[in-house]
Amino acid sequence: MIEATRSVAIQRYTHDGCTPREDAVAVEEPLEIRVEGHSIAVTMRTPGHDRELAAGFLLSEGIISSAADVFEISTCPSASAGNVVDVVLAAPELFDVKKFTRHVFTSSSCGLCGKATIESTLVPFPPLPQPTQDLPLEMILTLPERLREQQTNFQSTGGIHASALFDRSGNLLLLHEDVGRHNALDKVLGACLLKGLLPLTDYILLLSGRISFELMQKSLAAGIPIIAAVGAPSSLAVEFAHQSGQALIGFIRDGRCNLYAPNVEQSAGLLRPVKISPAG
Amino acid sequence: MIEATRSVAIQRYTHDGCTPREDAVAVEEPLEIRVEGHSIAVTMRTPGHDRELAAGFLLSEGIISSAADVFEISTCPSASAGNVVDVVLAAPELFDVKKFTRHVFTSSSCGLCGKATIESTLVPFPPLPQPTQDLPLEMILTLPERLREQQTNFQSTGGIHASALFDRSGNLLLLHEDVGRHNALDKVLGACLLKGLLPLTDYILLLSGRISFELMQKSLAAGIPIIAAVGAPSSLAVEFAHQSGQALIGFIRDGRCNLYAPNVEQSAGLLRPVKISPAG
Repeated sequence: MIEATRSVAIQRYTHDGCTPREDAVAVEEPLEIRVEGHSIAVTMRTPGHDRELAAGFLLSEGIISSAADVFEISTCPSASAGNVVDVVLAAPELFDVKKFTRHVFTSSSCGLCGKATIESTLVPFPPLPQPTQDLPLEMILTLPERLREQQTNFQSTGGIHASALFDRSGNLLLLHEDVGRHNALDKVLGACLLKGLLPLTDYILLLSGRISFELMQKSLAAGIPIIAAVGAPSSLAVEFAHQSGQALIGFIRDGRCNLYAPNVEQSAGLLRPVKISPAG
Repeated sequence: MIEATRSVAIQRYTHDGCTPREDAVAVEEPLEIRVEGHSIAVTMRTPGHDRELAAGFLLSEGIISSAADVFEISTCPSASAGNVVDVVLAAPELFDVKKFTRHVFTSSSCGLCGKATIESTLVPFPPLPQPTQDLPLEMILTLPERLREQQTNFQSTGGIHASALFDRSGNLLLLHEDVGRHNALDKVLGACLLKGLLPLTDYILLLSGRISFELMQKSLAAGIPIIAAVGAPSSLAVEFAHQSGQALIGFIRDGRCNLYAPNVEQSAGLLRPVKISPAG
């Protein structure tokens, strides 16, 4: 059964306190696209309609232009958790894998299936100790507003992402904007690296949008223990946080936020929850 | 002078009619990251803080972990319009480019500088004739609402993108959702390709978020003449539309929208504006 959304256990914080509940997140898993046996792309996608995704990708890469150019597109549910799609062309002699790879551009590192990816990621970047220091809820809830006040390019364009670091009192350390959300984060982390500030153990990362696996991976590389975002996390971001020991706070808006990791069950064992103090 | 935003001439449509004005868009340009002379990534980014971007990228790829690992990071303003950053490592003998490229994942095709990219893209995908058929403004303004009604996974998660095709009367042909906006579009285009529906000359593409160069490129590959979005376009998306002959409508919300291309000046020459009939 292919699922595009998945239910996760969260704790919802409002000014009135904290309630455990279920929340649906969008599923994010890697898909490898193979043409004539050559792996040409791995993209982080929501499962479902993988044949169509591969066909559309090859169309925009100029490899196919109609259904007649395709002999077969197949997925193998048992191989690599169904995260591989194989394309066989009607005229394979016209496909030059060398010409193609010259034109692709890379976005970020990634393994093949979600599980393998997380584990291999955790090899170079060991899990963090769970954050224990209390974070005032009021401070967390005001972070998006503090971000927006400083986001000068968003104010003028309405179309640019931001990443920012705040200390545990809510003071802004650094902010960068970019059309790509991973670029905005890379700029923040790179600036800190060049200034000798790593690891960023004492800081909270705030993202202006949604939280993907890739952004969690980057934040772990810099040792950031608390990831907060205006938007929703993907399934793989939540899974990643449970393994990395990072706290993951999403959907900070309208006086509430969701704590996705660590969760209540885990906090009784290995992980302790970030205590966002209820207000008042 | 590095600019993160750029002013473009637009026509703003409201229920009261149409006004020419200037609008700021976020600048999007490619950046090539080189390590020890090897090109390891090209990312579409907003110019500025490119050294930091490169350092952050290399941190999350596990190539560097502190400032001490970097001998020098330099940008050359005159080469390739300043869109290349060169990283020299303190210990180059530890950098294995083969090991690295095995782990990167590809996102989409791209050239090096904005201008070159657009021109090379237009070689395989010739410009379209400018759309001439009038589009009722009321219909355009209701598209986001029609999209959201059908976006079942967004309704449950609040964190997933959508791409959809509508005919010129505003009837939905096809919709796909995905955590990646380029994947959502690939699924739509691939489904149409496999059904033999290309080119999509008679359709309007609606995107749930912002409009990047990459999304314009994909839509041109499928021959879609009109691109509409809830969010803002990047500078390169606007530039692309002016060259491809596609109409580009952004920021459809609160009873208004912006027409970014074709523009008033061009419409007197090669390009004619899409006539969005003022209401009433």
